[in-house]
Amino acid sequence: MPMKRPLLKSKFSLRHYSLSSENVLKTGGILKQTRTFLDFDIAEYSKLTHDSNPLHSDLKCAKQAGFTEIPLSPEMLVASLFPRIIACHFPWAVYVKQELNFRSPVFIGDKVVGEVEAKNIRQIKEFCLVKFVTTCFKDGEIVVIGSEAMAMLPTLSIKKT
Amino acid sequence: MPMKRPLLKSKFSLRHYSLSSENVLKTGGILKQTRTFLDFDIAEYSKLTHDSNPLHSDLKCAKQAGFTEIPLSPEMLVASLFPRIIACHFPWAVYVKQELNFRSPVFIGDKVVGEVEAKNIRQIKEFCLVKFVTTCFKDGEIVVIGSEAMAMLPTLSIKKT
Repeated sequence: MPMKRPLLKSKFSLRHYSLSSENVLKTGGILKQTRTFLDFDIAEYSKLTHDSNPLHSDLKCAKQAGFTEIPLSPEMLVASLFPRIIACHFPWAVYVKQELNFRSPVFIGDKVVGEVEAKNIRQIKEFCLVKFVTTCFKDGEIVVIGSEAMAMLPTLSIKKT
Repeated sequence: MPMKRPLLKSKFSLRHYSLSSENVLKTGGILKQTRTFLDFDIAEYSKLTHDSNPLHSDLKCAKQAGFTEIPLSPEMLVASLFPRIIACHFPWAVYVKQELNFRSPVFIGDKVVGEVEAKNIRQIKEFCLVKFVTTCFKDGEIVVIGSEAMAMLPTLSIKKT
């Protein structure tokens, strides 16, 4: 069944998907959030970054480039889920590194699940250097971004949001 | 001399810094752009991504975290310079990979130079898979993001903007 075209303008659909029941981040701890990127978000991203890649806005262009008839969400906008998830649970987090492998396209209207999993935690003076496995999925198990990140956290206590 | 606090709201200061005089991208070819991120941009980024890390908006917080009294620009917002530079010269570019090492903070008001350099070019059917060295500098030679990217380009012809 063809995907229903999303409305031209819509509000954020960001919401918490699931959170660890623990109050302190441990190795293996996972934090998740979902988001659906719609036309309005892509237009705002383009205004903010001045990135006007026609694949993100032009139906014909996306189709001619071999994608579906629905334009793609900008890759870096989808990837912004990762620092958002980290910062809302660990305010004051300082990003050190982010690797991003864009494996599958995210189309406007796709429901994306962003997931960060603590892979390694090191105490360095008063900070914690945490390596995260950062992954975005769509339609259940399709990996759209597979990657890793590293951030300095002032504390491992998870802020409830 | 302390840095002058930028105005609360300002327009984009994105502009072309220098472009290759060639019309076709070759190995070693470099494309550059400058941008200064101001309060208004950070507020828009926060609205778009729902990332409200206080380091990006709270003067006291940034100072307490060991930075200057000027908040930081969000790392992923600074990194968005790379796909912007690529897409404006190669519309229809499809991002495949981006690595980002955040080496120095970018404060609100810093003039940032984004640079993408073609490191390797491979023809794959009708596309060109290009590996770029992607770097952001501030204050001349201070590297704020050192990284690499990979993108599929439909053509190596550089679009004049």
